[in-house]
Amino acid sequence: MKALQVIEGGLTLDEVPIPVLRGETLVRVSASGICNTDLEIVKGYAGFRGTIGHEFVGVVESSPDKPELVGRRVVGEINTGCGICPLCTTGDERHCPKRTVLGIKDRDGSHAEYLTLPSRNLFPVPDDVSDRDAVFVEPLAAALGITERIEFAPYTDLAVIGDGKLGLLCAFALSTTSNKVTLVGKHASKLQIAAERGITTMFAKDVDSARNAFDIVVEASGSESGFASALDLVRPRGKIVLKSTFSGMPKWEAWRVVVDEITIVGSRCGRFAPAIQLMCTNEFQLSSLISAEYPLAEAFEAMKHAGQKGVMKVLLTNAN
Amino acid sequence: MKALQVIEGGLTLDEVPIPVLRGETLVRVSASGICNTDLEIVKGYAGFRGTIGHEFVGVVESSPDKPELVGRRVVGEINTGCGICPLCTTGDERHCPKRTVLGIKDRDGSHAEYLTLPSRNLFPVPDDVSDRDAVFVEPLAAALGITERIEFAPYTDLAVIGDGKLGLLCAFALSTTSNKVTLVGKHASKLQIAAERGITTMFAKDVDSARNAFDIVVEASGSESGFASALDLVRPRGKIVLKSTFSGMPKWEAWRVVVDEITIVGSRCGRFAPAIQLMCTNEFQLSSLISAEYPLAEAFEAMKHAGQKGVMKVLLTNAN
Repeated sequence: MKALQVIEGGLTLDEVPIPVLRGETLVRVSASGICNTDLEIVKGYAGFRGTIGHEFVGVVESSPDKPELVGRRVVGEINTGCGICPLCTTGDERHCPKRTVLGIKDRDGSHAEYLTLPSRNLFPVPDDVSDRDAVFVEPLAAALGITERIEFAPYTDLAVIGDGKLGLLCAFALSTTSNKVTLVGKHASKLQIAAERGITTMFAKDVDSARNAFDIVVEASGSESGFASALDLVRPRGKIVLKSTFSGMPKWEAWRVVVDEITIVGSRCGRFAPAIQLMCTNEFQLSSLISAEYPLAEAFEAMKHAGQKGVMKVLLTNAN
Repeated sequence: MKALQVIEGGLTLDEVPIPVLRGETLVRVSASGICNTDLEIVKGYAGFRGTIGHEFVGVVESSPDKPELVGRRVVGEINTGCGICPLCTTGDERHCPKRTVLGIKDRDGSHAEYLTLPSRNLFPVPDDVSDRDAVFVEPLAAALGITERIEFAPYTDLAVIGDGKLGLLCAFALSTTSNKVTLVGKHASKLQIAAERGITTMFAKDVDSARNAFDIVVEASGSESGFASALDLVRPRGKIVLKSTFSGMPKWEAWRVVVDEITIVGSRCGRFAPAIQLMCTNEFQLSSLISAEYPLAEAFEAMKHAGQKGVMKVLLTNAN
């Protein structure tokens, strides 16, 4: 099969064997979304070697322990823990120190024709959710993961910094609970996507006019300046959620966190079930965020496209 | 009266008028502790101009609204809010945007013969607490302030990074709730002070042997390397409390906060009442942390002494 792999020296699109089951479930990938994390991994983030990709929808080919899944369309949670450590046994294999992560850590990913995952990681996709929407389950779950980490209410003033894919999904996810979500960004066209869905928008250059105005600020731009804006926007004793995987060693004004007694909350992956449930409403028409689709054979062009400024989601697809 | 002031161009010890009351209470300062924040302010931190010093014990000379305080020994909370904003009216003038802070922000401090504060900021000192202990009420309250920001239990694994004054006080304060406090530092003699009070100690060079071992890590060293060690020591989904006022713009591995879903909690000032109560037990013999005492007239020598490596608390005193 074809697989888009990061090897010593860069990216290759190679013919590799279909993955061996080892008790897991084999999924034929229908579509796989390119995430900014993929672009970061190519640059060296996480030191990963192997097939990249972790946002997918596919059809189960075989499953040793859950044969009823065969033929079903599925999406999959990307962390697989050891199953026996205290974190795994208390239900959070996402933080197992021995975990593998699809296309990110010690496990080949979804920019390929096939992948394997334990059957417990797979979730059937409801019939009324298209493949083009289902590829957004993983990033939408990550956005909803914020609600696992902090509590807020319909009247909580929330800002999301960053109008890229992640920022938009965070704004959508939070707006299902709070009526007072503001998306802060630099691009009129992207802010418009949020505005069309009833979310307040603000240009990043206007942050000064809203100093200390928000109870919670979600940093989804992954930039040093995004974090600085978060410190400006949040009120004393408010919370900043770090949602982006920052690369390198950014600088920060740690003293402001102390003086204003701010809480910073890291947030990574979320649960799939609430994301699938939300997807069923199709309220946010996520497939409209797709900028382009490429067959896997044109993965290089797709990655290049995904890395361009202003581009939203790019998909790799496999013909059925 | 004499006052140690930061002016344009540096530090001066000047004769200045005794402060005007403006409805506040006049306190004759008996002793005033030199804090690292004072040393930072001299270097430019917080842009403060005026009399520095914020850890004091003194005797009330006059009080327009609380005459029963006259002649009482007092210590004083250092933040004074506007009294009418939502933060003040809900009881937290420490975060009032218009607050003044004794010797730190828009209010002359305690390295002087007299100071004024609103009477509500002043707390009588119990007879069995000496002046030499009472000067530690402010920093001990700051250390206990951690308990206002996070919850923990007797079996919570806590580490405190930094074996200076602040780190020791934090370790003392936390050990009144948790039986599992470890102080991490670089100086055998300072770690010994904690060990004598029943606190586990660890050399900073041994941090690698305790990776992810702590539920909560308090950063009290104020250094970039201290924060990096905190990231090493804390478990996934654990908490890091930032207690030091960092200067400048340190670098941080923000991605680790995201991947391990760590929570960072800023903590500044604490309430005085619990600190005074704890002081009454004299369990920690805080006055033993005093390295030297100087009359106010020798404030320059005292500041120089306080800035030397290995020195603990240096006091400025006024003869009665």
